[in-house]
Amino acid sequence: MTIPSLVIGIAGGTGAGKTTVARQITERVKGAVTYVPLDNYYHDLSHLDLDERRTVNYDHPSAFEWELLRTHVGALLEGRSIEMPQYDFTVHNRTDERVRVEPTDVVVIEGIFALYDDAVADMMDLRLYVDTDADVRILRRIRRDVVDRDRDLEGVIDQYLSTVKPMHEGFVEPTKERADLIIPEGANSVAVSLLSETLRSELDGDDLRRWDRESDLGRRWDPTDDRERVLDDATISPDDEEV
Amino acid sequence: MTIPSLVIGIAGGTGAGKTTVARQITERVKGAVTYVPLDNYYHDLSHLDLDERRTVNYDHPSAFEWELLRTHVGALLEGRSIEMPQYDFTVHNRTDERVRVEPTDVVVIEGIFALYDDAVADMMDLRLYVDTDADVRILRRIRRDVVDRDRDLEGVIDQYLSTVKPMHEGFVEPTKERADLIIPEGANSVAVSLLSETLRSELDGDDLRRWDRESDLGRRWDPTDDRERVLDDATISPDDEEV
Repeated sequence: MTIPSLVIGIAGGTGAGKTTVARQITERVKGAVTYVPLDNYYHDLSHLDLDERRTVNYDHPSAFEWELLRTHVGALLEGRSIEMPQYDFTVHNRTDERVRVEPTDVVVIEGIFALYDDAVADMMDLRLYVDTDADVRILRRIRRDVVDRDRDLEGVIDQYLSTVKPMHEGFVEPTKERADLIIPEGANSVAVSLLSETLRSELDGDDLRRWDRESDLGRRWDPTDDRERVLDDATISPDDEEV
Repeated sequence: MTIPSLVIGIAGGTGAGKTTVARQITERVKGAVTYVPLDNYYHDLSHLDLDERRTVNYDHPSAFEWELLRTHVGALLEGRSIEMPQYDFTVHNRTDERVRVEPTDVVVIEGIFALYDDAVADMMDLRLYVDTDADVRILRRIRRDVVDRDRDLEGVIDQYLSTVKPMHEGFVEPTKERADLIIPEGANSVAVSLLSETLRSELDGDDLRRWDRESDLGRRWDPTDDRERVLDDATISPDDEEV
């Protein structure tokens, strides 16, 4: 078996249930899974003091060190281990620690921007987007921040409206276009079971990565190429539908 | 093996690519598939003349004979054959012919309202919704009706705006909430490959219907029950996300 067999991306907005989906799939696959949380790839901000770091927009793609993520996913794909940075949310910064991560059968890349970067998305065999209504997502966030983290409700609301929501709509939501499958409502049990089973049977078999896409990302993103393909893809034969 | 092993629903708007997804999955599964196009379950309108039948709203759920569909899917599930009605689009009516359809490993129920009826949806193991942008869908429809069927463009546009679009938004689109998985952009090759493979390995195995949902439809549709579940489903642990 080639290592890794499969690279899976799991994207979606804050509070969508990405980590739950990732965890449940990982648990059920039962084999070794290399878990790559995008949060570990926030830029090193040691040159800023804590107050400055508090003002950084962590919901914008520029907050991430994409080059490092690309290098690391590339290394895992070639069967090499990586030294993964670790992130401390309480101080909004990368820690000094790095953790050695070995390549395994399945690599799961998870985070709001998992499908954002062309090069990273290109390395994925399966691109998932966890799609949960915005009202449910903000309620989860409020529960987390206000109840669990004892933060001020007004502050949470202000941050959501001023940063989280516009960044989501501007940068996260558009990556849904890149998804191969959309998982509605966070951890829906049928979707998670089906995906876990597929991974398991994929890993048990000797005929891996059979889901090669017809072509690369350009297929969906190149406007000059897109028009005919989209329409031809599902041309309806004259007599197969009423009215 | 119990027959049928799996009941799959494929819903989505007009021009979304439902039939293409159904056909591609069916072809790749290679085993026997019992195909149930919802269009065959339009009401028998023999009591109306052709001009009257032309005025019927075929995009409304009431145009379908749900009771017959429920009975037929139930019969297939119990391993009994059915006498499936056939539909002639050119005269907007059911034909006199009925076709005997045998139950097989996989039953695919396909149509704009495949996920609409509670009882039918409840009999499904996997509920899919093919989600394609409305502009792409209307372009496919125009191509089909104007180019292939030589219909008047103005008439197609009028019908779309007066009936198809409001019915889609009022009755089809809301059934997306019931989907276990959403397939973006019609026949996307990765989604189709993954689903076909899963079905194939499901059929090869002896441990069938492993994707039982946590509970019945009420889970998502009963507002008194929903709140806590939705929020608990993907509760975010205090330190797993920035800001």
